[in-house]
Amino acid sequence: MAHNEWKSVGNGHLEGPVSIPDLDPSKLTITLTDTPKPLPNPEDLVFGAIMTDHMLVSSFDPINGWSAPEIKPYGPFTLDPASSCFQYATNIFEGMKAYIGPDGKPRLFRPEKNMARLARSAARLALPPFNTNALLELIKKLIVIDQRWIPNLEGHSLYLRPTIIGTRPTLGVAASDRALLYVILSPTGPYFRTGPKPVSLFAAAENVRAWPGGTGSHKVAGNYAPGFLPQKEAAKLGYEQILWLLKDESGWKVTEAGAMNIFVVVGREDGDLDVITPPLDGTILPGVTRESILAIVKAHTDGKLCLPGISPTKCLHAHERSFTIADMEVWAEKGQLLEVFAVGTAAVVAPVGRVGFRDDDSKKAIRDLMLPPYEGGMGPIGRAVRTMIIDIQEGRFEWEGWSVACQ
Amino acid sequence: MAHNEWKSVGNGHLEGPVSIPDLDPSKLTITLTDTPKPLPNPEDLVFGAIMTDHMLVSSFDPINGWSAPEIKPYGPFTLDPASSCFQYATNIFEGMKAYIGPDGKPRLFRPEKNMARLARSAARLALPPFNTNALLELIKKLIVIDQRWIPNLEGHSLYLRPTIIGTRPTLGVAASDRALLYVILSPTGPYFRTGPKPVSLFAAAENVRAWPGGTGSHKVAGNYAPGFLPQKEAAKLGYEQILWLLKDESGWKVTEAGAMNIFVVVGREDGDLDVITPPLDGTILPGVTRESILAIVKAHTDGKLCLPGISPTKCLHAHERSFTIADMEVWAEKGQLLEVFAVGTAAVVAPVGRVGFRDDDSKKAIRDLMLPPYEGGMGPIGRAVRTMIIDIQEGRFEWEGWSVACQ
Repeated sequence: MAHNEWKSVGNGHLEGPVSIPDLDPSKLTITLTDTPKPLPNPEDLVFGAIMTDHMLVSSFDPINGWSAPEIKPYGPFTLDPASSCFQYATNIFEGMKAYIGPDGKPRLFRPEKNMARLARSAARLALPPFNTNALLELIKKLIVIDQRWIPNLEGHSLYLRPTIIGTRPTLGVAASDRALLYVILSPTGPYFRTGPKPVSLFAAAENVRAWPGGTGSHKVAGNYAPGFLPQKEAAKLGYEQILWLLKDESGWKVTEAGAMNIFVVVGREDGDLDVITPPLDGTILPGVTRESILAIVKAHTDGKLCLPGISPTKCLHAHERSFTIADMEVWAEKGQLLEVFAVGTAAVVAPVGRVGFRDDDSKKAIRDLMLPPYEGGMGPIGRAVRTMIIDIQEGRFEWEGWSVACQ
Repeated sequence: MAHNEWKSVGNGHLEGPVSIPDLDPSKLTITLTDTPKPLPNPEDLVFGAIMTDHMLVSSFDPINGWSAPEIKPYGPFTLDPASSCFQYATNIFEGMKAYIGPDGKPRLFRPEKNMARLARSAARLALPPFNTNALLELIKKLIVIDQRWIPNLEGHSLYLRPTIIGTRPTLGVAASDRALLYVILSPTGPYFRTGPKPVSLFAAAENVRAWPGGTGSHKVAGNYAPGFLPQKEAAKLGYEQILWLLKDESGWKVTEAGAMNIFVVVGREDGDLDVITPPLDGTILPGVTRESILAIVKAHTDGKLCLPGISPTKCLHAHERSFTIADMEVWAEKGQLLEVFAVGTAAVVAPVGRVGFRDDDSKKAIRDLMLPPYEGGMGPIGRAVRTMIIDIQEGRFEWEGWSVACQ
């Protein structure tokens, strides 16, 4: 019990000072809505704006453990103004997607990765543990119930937002011993409606997303709000997203882009390509898309699969390695910086066209590092990994059991 | 408009792209409860556990601005599960206290400082601005309405929790353009019921509260949840609170203690005393108690007031200056480390008796730095500033207009 008073032991109970009920799918109650909402036009979908008909909910208290889970009509929560979730941000979440496979059935992409990360986030904020297999089973049931909301169109999906919030209703500065776990669903279209378009990033020097010993490697709500002001300031300067940096003895290390992980593709003198993303040093969110791209790049070079549009003999070297803005400048000057792309569940892969940054002195003018333009907006490696990941997600290409049927 | 789309201009309007209503006390509606709660026994009060009969609420949206403020019975909020406050921790708060003065009337301690800090926190999280004078006027009205809840006993007060949460009900990762501002009140007894008792601190090396470019100097909810796990781990090791450190080239700098600022009192060879607290370098919360203690220590040495129990000729040198755990060890070895105390609105001054820390290697044994024991649990400087601050807060000593009547 290093981190929590209870431990999820997989038999429907949390064990600890006392034994209390764990999240238990066998206790699920389902209440369907009497008034199903009309489906939105897929072309009008805005990310995360419309929710489906139902949601999954279970609450935790230290006497009764996790309550019998409920699938019920989507609707508001009633919460005490003193709740920890408002006062102390005891809130964590996940982002996942469900897709319609060629068999017409919904499927998830490596969902056990999200369940494990949610459990790690819960432990980090001293929220109660839960059985991750049980939550996944419940999520699958919810998706099947709201399956009609998944647009059966390429690049479309159902975005899932599992969330846990602390609900202890007192102001004492301490861990929340009460929680509400819920999962809400939102139909979503492609990140780029008219094909990939390179995004511009502004390198934030004054604001830092994460720090050694902070929570950057966990998906906690508190990581996000501090980015909104820098994001607004970047927008005023004409950039779409923030490039997050962290200064150390090596210089201004590149860490993440907006709410996404980042990759660079660097041409080598031997004709091979280095595909580099920052290592999981505690300041980087361990993204599922990030991990999957690293794996398929290695698989290509190992001859286990062939990335679309890339020669099977082309050697791609995947690296988890720190690099700085100065490294990017040097590579760019030598013509070696071939592609930069941001990756995440929402966008899958978003190409970067331009990176604005200032030298150390914040009064200096902004310099722009320009990435090579590509026909169709995306370079060959970004396009290849994006196509491969989406083909796996949507069930057109079977790979390592990554795509998991919901029923 | 560097930080927000609107600016509070003090005439009941926010000016920006359009003019929308600001928080306006002249629009206040008051609905008193039909069922006033029984007052708790002052001896049974637990910090932040019981709320009074009423609360103050106003909501913001970008079309209608701040709604007509309401004082109404304390009760739960109804919120969409996709709200920013749950998903992205767009939440800020303040901690203040109201006291019963010798005239029997409620008073606040330097409330304009809290209002200004709340406005800075709002700007940092890209929440809407508000008229700070208007909020203070509304808070005073709320306190007068719930005045019966302030225990008229020394060391007792009404704890105030002004809070703003983002209520944008969509999952897009962006600033919240909707908000709920509320103030809740909780009667509170003395931090130490049976007189001061030195607390033990465990110096956290693995977890960092704040960092340059982070939000440590703002009172945002996301600063708190990451401390709960280290707090639990410290408790298992037998320590009551965390001593937060930040490593840089000078070593392990001391920053804060629990959710409080920290002071050390160091004896000098000339017989004077240095009273040192870390500087406001962006990682330290600019606490009102911290600022007030610095001011009264200076006032003592300048002969403008005399700290109780301290000779008027005793020279105290107040410093805002970084120091490290290693500095504390050196001072302790030389017998110069006379007092360590944590300061904040809830405790005012809490003496520290013991600081546990590990050298760089986290596997090493914990060493304890012991502070000199004092009769009554608190050293002369901690006791003097605590008594003086409380005398000012409770209106027994008039100083610089710090104590402000509510009516």
